[in-house]
Amino acid sequence: MSFNKQNKPVIAVVGAGPGIGEAVARRFAAEGYVTALLARTEDKLQSMCERLEKDFGQGISRYYLTDLRNEEQVIASFSAIRTELGPVQVLVYNAGARRVNGRAVLDTTTEEFESFTKINLFGAFWSSKCVLPDMLAAGRGTIIFTGATGSLRGMPGLSSFSPGKFGLRSLAQIITREYQSKGIHTAHIIIDGPVDGKLIGGVKRRQWIRDGDKEKLEEVDAYIAQPDDLAQIYWFLHSQPRSSWTQELDVRAQKESMFSKL
Amino acid sequence: MSFNKQNKPVIAVVGAGPGIGEAVARRFAAEGYVTALLARTEDKLQSMCERLEKDFGQGISRYYLTDLRNEEQVIASFSAIRTELGPVQVLVYNAGARRVNGRAVLDTTTEEFESFTKINLFGAFWSSKCVLPDMLAAGRGTIIFTGATGSLRGMPGLSSFSPGKFGLRSLAQIITREYQSKGIHTAHIIIDGPVDGKLIGGVKRRQWIRDGDKEKLEEVDAYIAQPDDLAQIYWFLHSQPRSSWTQELDVRAQKESMFSKL
Amino acid sequence: MSFNKQNKPVIAVVGAGPGIGEAVARRFAAEGYVTALLARTEDKLQSMCERLEKDFGQGISRYYLTDLRNEEQVIASFSAIRTELGPVQVLVYNAGARRVNGRAVLDTTTEEFESFTKINLFGAFWSSKCVLPDMLAAGRGTIIFTGATGSLRGMPGLSSFSPGKFGLRSLAQIITREYQSKGIHTAHIIIDGPVDGKLIGGVKRRQWIRDGDKEKLEEVDAYIAQPDDLAQIYWFLHSQPRSSWTQELDVRAQKESMFSKL
Amino acid sequence: MSFNKQNKPVIAVVGAGPGIGEAVARRFAAEGYVTALLARTEDKLQSMCERLEKDFGQGISRYYLTDLRNEEQVIASFSAIRTELGPVQVLVYNAGARRVNGRAVLDTTTEEFESFTKINLFGAFWSSKCVLPDMLAAGRGTIIFTGATGSLRGMPGLSSFSPGKFGLRSLAQIITREYQSKGIHTAHIIIDGPVDGKLIGGVKRRQWIRDGDKEKLEEVDAYIAQPDDLAQIYWFLHSQPRSSWTQELDVRAQKESMFSKL
Repeated sequence: MSFNKQNKPVIAVVGAGPGIGEAVARRFAAEGYVTALLARTEDKLQSMCERLEKDFGQGISRYYLTDLRNEEQVIASFSAIRTELGPVQVLVYNAGARRVNGRAVLDTTTEEFESFTKINLFGAFWSSKCVLPDMLAAGRGTIIFTGATGSLRGMPGLSSFSPGKFGLRSLAQIITREYQSKGIHTAHIIIDGPVDGKLIGGVKRRQWIRDGDKEKLEEVDAYIAQPDDLAQIYWFLHSQPRSSWTQELDVRAQKESMFSKL
Repeated sequence: MSFNKQNKPVIAVVGAGPGIGEAVARRFAAEGYVTALLARTEDKLQSMCERLEKDFGQGISRYYLTDLRNEEQVIASFSAIRTELGPVQVLVYNAGARRVNGRAVLDTTTEEFESFTKINLFGAFWSSKCVLPDMLAAGRGTIIFTGATGSLRGMPGLSSFSPGKFGLRSLAQIITREYQSKGIHTAHIIIDGPVDGKLIGGVKRRQWIRDGDKEKLEEVDAYIAQPDDLAQIYWFLHSQPRSSWTQELDVRAQKESMFSKL
Repeated sequence: MSFNKQNKPVIAVVGAGPGIGEAVARRFAAEGYVTALLARTEDKLQSMCERLEKDFGQGISRYYLTDLRNEEQVIASFSAIRTELGPVQVLVYNAGARRVNGRAVLDTTTEEFESFTKINLFGAFWSSKCVLPDMLAAGRGTIIFTGATGSLRGMPGLSSFSPGKFGLRSLAQIITREYQSKGIHTAHIIIDGPVDGKLIGGVKRRQWIRDGDKEKLEEVDAYIAQPDDLAQIYWFLHSQPRSSWTQELDVRAQKESMFSKL
Repeated sequence: MSFNKQNKPVIAVVGAGPGIGEAVARRFAAEGYVTALLARTEDKLQSMCERLEKDFGQGISRYYLTDLRNEEQVIASFSAIRTELGPVQVLVYNAGARRVNGRAVLDTTTEEFESFTKINLFGAFWSSKCVLPDMLAAGRGTIIFTGATGSLRGMPGLSSFSPGKFGLRSLAQIITREYQSKGIHTAHIIIDGPVDGKLIGGVKRRQWIRDGDKEKLEEVDAYIAQPDDLAQIYWFLHSQPRSSWTQELDVRAQKESMFSKL
């Protein structure tokens, strides 16, 4: 049974949290999209849906409880989306599992390594396989993966995070090269530095400031990346014409750390 | 004497040709900018100015004849822009000199190597130095450099092109890191593949097509990058909020060569 | 019970096949190392051991049947190596699973994606955790991962291979940064193009040859990378002094494809 | 008139200083090479030659006073080398001009930008053109360029250094792709961090040390890269067999800065 009576285009936001995920959903809802939200915590999903419906109208959003480490759950959720909302036109894979205080390899458990890598990489593979057939049938579709500085550099403490993110970037390149000529636009966004979601809101940012030929560590009123601003980029990528598709871009706040990895 | 009676914001497009350069100028003119065009060929500059004024109004555009290999000429042009139009708020360095049929290193003359490298790299250094003081005084400004696949990979036949383009990318990173905390947004656009300007308009694109496990070379109705579409990206970068600045992105048409270098 | 009566230094070669793996083992055996070979096919392991013992002496080599997708087996093998040969001084992770004729994402099964990614990435994580404690205790040790062009670029058809290889490269960087100051030298070798092992021996290489401004595909007498030559690089990396450690290098035969990815 | 009576193979070391340059010359002299040293400061060149001849025999070394920013001088020196020593078999371009305390773009003079870029990039182009014809005639030859972390990342304060070094890396890739199939082995070495030459000898290294989740800046007894150790890498690259050529590698001391750029 369809909950998308007006046949609005459908976006699936995987790893939908109150930071970027919600902002992306809202941005697309404002453009007339129905939003399917996939994540593991029901009360957060419910709140997001309620906020979306309050602001953009009844039926604009549905959530799908999904453990992204579990392929069957991923398939079941996308199957339900298809039945209830219709074929997905835009997939945003925004899930990313990381430990705030990273541990060295010897202190990283296999459980964490495997669990995080599945969320950071495997879930994107499964989700892409779920949406590609309908996109190919339609001759169009947008797939956007959210990356991080850890997608480009293996930094200390990130062994349960970075390998999966490197892999995700590889997957974005592969899907691009395999399917772009059939109308699928795939892109990878590298977000450099913290995003002002629930987790880090209000936290100041330590920053190395040059002072002559020295550096000093300061707490700064950082221009942390704002989810609503980031969501503009997702929309922009989706709306690029076929003559000019971006495959990868980075984003950073104005005041990056001087040791940021670009 | 000012020709910018209404104090419109000013964009300088360096290497303004009838492809990307003109399209960028038109995009910003449509947003209310006065456009300063810098290049070496007067009749082309004149035609572009006339088209801009015809479509966007009297006084919307002025041109400045400049040999980008010559620092004095670059300084003189920016000095004239400052006097006649006011401080530059957006600099787009779009100049790029390359030989269509590349020659190996031994067949590349020093004259060509030096001349092209000056256009591809030195001119951007001089132009940036001309506009940065006013941008810093204003606490804002946008600098965008146009790169190419040759900015990332040294391909055969490109010894007079690629080193300068690599260097330009380096310069974009340096200016970013030196001045972003002071409000200057610097970005580097990597355009992958041909752009449908006067030079290559109408020319089909050779493309390697996979046929089972073989590849074959075909002339395809390529979705060549369209200047107007590319110009959207320049505008998008300029209008990004400070929380979310992109430093680098690539662009390619939907149907890239399978050997494209990303 | 120790089979390493003379207390020779120990190298563990994981993913030991008759190509690079065996050549590396022989190279280190020639320098006086005892070699532990880990792989899944017993008769190949047995033959390699026999050849090693024939050429370098009784007791110079032992094999450990291991399914690299299975952490318990990896741990058990390294535990046996420790008991039977002593602490590992050099770890070479050379395992790499790929399908010769790659399939697009939609035709790649989850089983293959997961199985290959475990071999290409997870096995290296587990193996490193097994050897690092003894290396740290000794204040020295060498860890070398074998990568491929697919470690740097996501090419079509490689979705079950490339994400794991990207991840492996990330892991090499992380282990480098976490443990180099404690005396552990970690390196990543990017092998560009085919290696003349059992799989491809005798097969000519298709190569795009420039002919004026055209390219043509030719079967060439390729200088395929020779395992013995590659093995020199592993030894060279291991013998670098602490003042000058290489973290990453590429290798290619003299006649790379012109579209090689560097 | 030939000074190379025994027809020893010839290496030209461009940018020969008492650090890497001299060490490379000595390493090759030890292998039976005649060494041509090119640089701008006569007394340094003279001392190096004397030390080389003292240790490796009369006639083992000659110097050629050369301003690398001046193509005519470069050509004249290589012409003299050809006449006096014979065709060059190995070219090491080791020149690199940088300011120790970097200045931002606005404080970098055009004179410095141009002068340094010529040394860092143009001189390598000219030198390569001088040696390639003889190498091609011989069907063999080795060209090695010395790069730096600044070859990969545009860091603040390096606008007169980094663009040229990026360009040099591009040039290495181009020469590789243009001439490797003809027997020329071209490689690029990225030296990460300071080298213990005359300039920085004895100076300790500031290093960021992790202390729990903080970092602190400490003066450490750094394992600064030793010229003699680095010189091994140049020799190793030159002696690689054709089946296994390395195009690029990095080198760093064991105790890199944690913010090193890899």
